[in-house]
Amino acid sequence: MLFGGVFFRHYEHPVELESFERYWEMHEKVTTLAQQIERDLDHPTVVEDFQAYIDEVMPYLTSKKSLPTLHDPFWDLEGSVFFCWTIMTTIGYGFYAPSTKTGKIFCIFYAVMTVPLFLSSLTTLSAAMANGIRSVASWLRKNEDHYCSIFFHRLGKKSDARKKRKWYIIGILALGLLYTLLFAIVFAREHDGWSYLDGVYFCFITLSTIGLGDYLPTLQEHEVFLFILYSFVGLLLVGSITNLMQEFFSAGAEKVAHSAVRQLKGPIQAVRESSFRLQGSFRLPKQASERGVSSRQVSSLSDVWKNPAAA
Amino acid sequence: MLFGGVFFRHYEHPVELESFERYWEMHEKVTTLAQQIERDLDHPTVVEDFQAYIDEVMPYLTSKKSLPTLHDPFWDLEGSVFFCWTIMTTIGYGFYAPSTKTGKIFCIFYAVMTVPLFLSSLTTLSAAMANGIRSVASWLRKNEDHYCSIFFHRLGKKSDARKKRKWYIIGILALGLLYTLLFAIVFAREHDGWSYLDGVYFCFITLSTIGLGDYLPTLQEHEVFLFILYSFVGLLLVGSITNLMQEFFSAGAEKVAHSAVRQLKGPIQAVRESSFRLQGSFRLPKQASERGVSSRQVSSLSDVWKNPAAA
Repeated sequence: MLFGGVFFRHYEHPVELESFERYWEMHEKVTTLAQQIERDLDHPTVVEDFQAYIDEVMPYLTSKKSLPTLHDPFWDLEGSVFFCWTIMTTIGYGFYAPSTKTGKIFCIFYAVMTVPLFLSSLTTLSAAMANGIRSVASWLRKNEDHYCSIFFHRLGKKSDARKKRKWYIIGILALGLLYTLLFAIVFAREHDGWSYLDGVYFCFITLSTIGLGDYLPTLQEHEVFLFILYSFVGLLLVGSITNLMQEFFSAGAEKVAHSAVRQLKGPIQAVRESSFRLQGSFRLPKQASERGVSSRQVSSLSDVWKNPAAA
Repeated sequence: MLFGGVFFRHYEHPVELESFERYWEMHEKVTTLAQQIERDLDHPTVVEDFQAYIDEVMPYLTSKKSLPTLHDPFWDLEGSVFFCWTIMTTIGYGFYAPSTKTGKIFCIFYAVMTVPLFLSSLTTLSAAMANGIRSVASWLRKNEDHYCSIFFHRLGKKSDARKKRKWYIIGILALGLLYTLLFAIVFAREHDGWSYLDGVYFCFITLSTIGLGDYLPTLQEHEVFLFILYSFVGLLLVGSITNLMQEFFSAGAEKVAHSAVRQLKGPIQAVRESSFRLQGSFRLPKQASERGVSSRQVSSLSDVWKNPAAA
């Protein structure tokens, strides 16, 4: 967090200062002009009128409020549905936020009702999607002798289980990346002034539900539903990737822990036996020592720890 | 979503139009004034200078960008650490967002590294906290004859398991609500111009990780870490409430499903037996009919469905 903080300060602070200086230079210039006109030309309301304008503008400058445009208001039906979607998914761009008391209270109630519902259905659907991806992958694995081995033979490599798993993870991440990068092109093309990086950044900030809202899609009527569809599929994909990654990592962690325990088995047993010898009256249980060592019999880590001789 | 959309449009659209009209009225007035000065008083740069000011101001008016203030810049170390925290937790207020290319790219990488890490540790810690709450509750349940029964006896009510569960859920939700409402007072008091509703709204939008960012805490150096602590404990609490609620709801759903299956058992068995009779050669398995009916033996719903006589 501190590292990130230092990084952002280093890159964002100078730009911030620059933008600050440019604005206040301009502000100074116009204020001086207004005062000059009033003094020189005896026009008493110039400063007053200008000050009124500044006062009107200032809340927008110093807050995240933004000025609506009459030909494209936000809080029409499309915009409101879009807003509800960002609340439900906890994206919460916040480019627009409820300004009335009733709107704020309703926003809380709406979120209380819909967020848990949405998240639990997303979790269920993500798990189902992950299972689908898993079965496709296992089908590919079964049929790999047919298709993949041609490549592997050409490359002169043996098919290695660990390498396969690596490629599997890379494949899933590539799927997610492809989804982000592909639709980033669409978003960058649809919006004037967005670079491709802006498109990628927007897609990422949306699908991670961070929702900074510094970039907001400009949506026509039907596009709201396309956007909801896009983000829903994207969130599902992220959910299933998380699901699959978790499985892999927990499997990997278990493997690491198992091998660590296996390596510790010698010292543990030595310590145990020496303590048995010291106590004199204790012996290793007969059945355990007769069972022999088989790593298949290790059902859980705690078993190994409690009785290293049985493993 | 549509209902929510209609609601927000009804309450937010008029306010939006009003703010739009007020701004453009002011804008019109000042522009006319500038033109008038230029025409009447032969001052050739008034319109030009004013237009430059408008051009400078407009991006702030029509985007979520906000003007930094020199005596309280955002992208200092505290602000940057605060920003990193909002990315990591996916709150993403977005009041300030990276404006440089490097900042955007780093933001993506930072989120990719920290969000899964944060979420998985939050899940683990929430589960631990939920277990803690559970054991406190079970301790209370065990010792309730001592303390609670006095109240129950006075009220003349029998202690009912379902009622207890209800009170348990209410208790947990009350804990979460208390946390929100209590700190809402702190936030409302710390910030001028925030009503108590604004404080509650801010706390809720933060702890749900929606993070609209229309309200942002103004934090001094040490307060950043207090805020991080506040939101971390809050997110833990929300996580453990979700954990506990899930358990209760799945238990409740199982109970409902069980009782539905129990009610269906009669008709299912009748259909099965009549089909057996029709087929003539089939009989109910002997062990199953000898086992007798005991709801304790019902290990899963699928068992009941496959073999209703055994349940």
